[in-house]
Amino acid sequence: MEISEYGEFGLIEHLTANFPLKNKSSLYGVGDDCAVIENTPEEGKTVVTTDLLLEGIHFDLTYCPLRHLGYKACVVNFSDVYAMMGTPRQITVSLGISKRFKVEDLEEFYAGMKLACDIYGVDLVGGDTSASMTGLTISITCIGVAESPVYRNGAKPNDLICVSGDLGAAYMGLQLLEREKAMFYQEYNEWMREGKKGEQPQFQPKFEGKEYLLERQLKPEARKDIVQKLKEVGITPTSMMDVSDGLSSELLHICKQSKCGCRVYEERLPIDFQTASQAEEFNLNVTTCAMNGGEDYELLFTVPLAQNELIQQVSGIRLIGHMTDERLGAAMITRDGNSEISLKAQGWNAFKN
Amino acid sequence: MEISEYGEFGLIEHLTANFPLKNKSSLYGVGDDCAVIENTPEEGKTVVTTDLLLEGIHFDLTYCPLRHLGYKACVVNFSDVYAMMGTPRQITVSLGISKRFKVEDLEEFYAGMKLACDIYGVDLVGGDTSASMTGLTISITCIGVAESPVYRNGAKPNDLICVSGDLGAAYMGLQLLEREKAMFYQEYNEWMREGKKGEQPQFQPKFEGKEYLLERQLKPEARKDIVQKLKEVGITPTSMMDVSDGLSSELLHICKQSKCGCRVYEERLPIDFQTASQAEEFNLNVTTCAMNGGEDYELLFTVPLAQNELIQQVSGIRLIGHMTDERLGAAMITRDGNSEISLKAQGWNAFKN
Repeated sequence: MEISEYGEFGLIEHLTANFPLKNKSSLYGVGDDCAVIENTPEEGKTVVTTDLLLEGIHFDLTYCPLRHLGYKACVVNFSDVYAMMGTPRQITVSLGISKRFKVEDLEEFYAGMKLACDIYGVDLVGGDTSASMTGLTISITCIGVAESPVYRNGAKPNDLICVSGDLGAAYMGLQLLEREKAMFYQEYNEWMREGKKGEQPQFQPKFEGKEYLLERQLKPEARKDIVQKLKEVGITPTSMMDVSDGLSSELLHICKQSKCGCRVYEERLPIDFQTASQAEEFNLNVTTCAMNGGEDYELLFTVPLAQNELIQQVSGIRLIGHMTDERLGAAMITRDGNSEISLKAQGWNAFKN
Repeated sequence: MEISEYGEFGLIEHLTANFPLKNKSSLYGVGDDCAVIENTPEEGKTVVTTDLLLEGIHFDLTYCPLRHLGYKACVVNFSDVYAMMGTPRQITVSLGISKRFKVEDLEEFYAGMKLACDIYGVDLVGGDTSASMTGLTISITCIGVAESPVYRNGAKPNDLICVSGDLGAAYMGLQLLEREKAMFYQEYNEWMREGKKGEQPQFQPKFEGKEYLLERQLKPEARKDIVQKLKEVGITPTSMMDVSDGLSSELLHICKQSKCGCRVYEERLPIDFQTASQAEEFNLNVTTCAMNGGEDYELLFTVPLAQNELIQQVSGIRLIGHMTDERLGAAMITRDGNSEISLKAQGWNAFKN
């Protein structure tokens, strides 16, 4: 079905009909000049984050299903709110849509967003929908509450550096998808070049046993559970952020804003078996993937040394190093313990090249 | 200067260095996973609006200077907050930037945003900056406070329909800019076709005496003053919205959501002299321009009949009609008083054609 059959307002009504407001603080959602939100002072402060996702830069629709994309577009925003020790409550969603999209495509995208909103308890309260000259543009703003927001600037020398989950898997998932995409085009082009001799190739991507990598890339989760666990055991991190551009880049942010240095240990980096095995297959250094891959959406945080025993009680968290005096800079101690490698933000920088 | 010389984080730091936080409620701005905001309950509820502006759809950089665009991108969001009887306080700004933009271009854009933020007392607290494959993408979210938000759904039959300022000027400004652009290309193409004989044409657009139309299109204002005046005389409108898609379209929104009909009087429509004169020059029906032009960013609102005398005290407001029972539908009474024309949302619909 063509989007023009609905028109802008009809389309928004159609797509958002399935999103009843769940949170008490969401007083008014889609349909007016503004959404209206009321947070009580006991719930804490209001936190706001926003992410812009552009086709061809942040996602590739040849292998990213729209439903997954809708899910991921929400989750990456929720992740920023959890990274303040907050709770996401509302999102606004703006879409720029080119002519090649049908109503059914948008329904898929909204189905993914609905799933994410349901799982994380978030309300869709507004947005803007527009035609676009080119690809799909997604801009999501997430609003949440945080009783005591945890910033990037509170780490102190000797604080322990912790990271949730494991690193590098989303990056390996991306490499895998890119390889299979290239193989598909290669087979297809050969068939075209040979004058379409024989049947069109039935390309089967090789993904068996790599489900975890694909899931980490295509349908990541935000670490709501970690924030809950930290609150339960009574830990307030001295600094926190989520790992979206790569651990190296994020450690440098915390160091810079906290006016500290840091030491992390290569052997302590949490890496899944599939990530390691795939890195070997691709002949990539798995440490580089873990340090600079990005899109992990894990939580990186620091706690005072005195909370060492307390933090060990929290499952799913790895201690990877400690903060130092600023003058010592930020570095990784290699596996053999003999050398230090200065951290560089080799993470994703779309303005380069 | 190339954007890549800064990189994403350096660029954001450079562009936002000039935006110190002004509002007490802006606890933390640019530089963390989230901005942090604290509204006291006495200030009212939190209101949120968002607008997506795409190059080639919403603006044309051949005649829209980046500084004006930055200003306008902010103001259209502020306008939505005023339309709730609110006060804008914070914005987040996401930009998708293609390779043809230099740092200096973005500085111009941010200078326009800074001017708007200074004039309207708003803080820039966050955003996202990314490369883009094609044109410029601008997504702004505005957060404000409203003691008693005014929705679109509170109008009652017999309420008076009021509109601030005048209508149709921004649309005429757009037509004028489009005409001059076409004339420029025509002259230039003729010169190219004739083998570049003679000097390159020094095209001078004809804008004398039409400054108001251009200003309404390129550098609109939000009606903060009207909201203040209404508060001063103690009027709380029963419904309110801003005129962005055209008066017809907005009246239909209020009618639909308030479950009312309406009658507006053609002879009561506020139209500036320049608008009328330009419409005549273009052989356009000035009423159609005023009803369907859009981008006026005036306030459309309803007040109870009993506040007739009170509203007359507020300068810059025109009574244009009244709400009716829903069964009567939404219509305009023509100048001669003899016929009713049903309102249609002929306003801008980018999905059509």
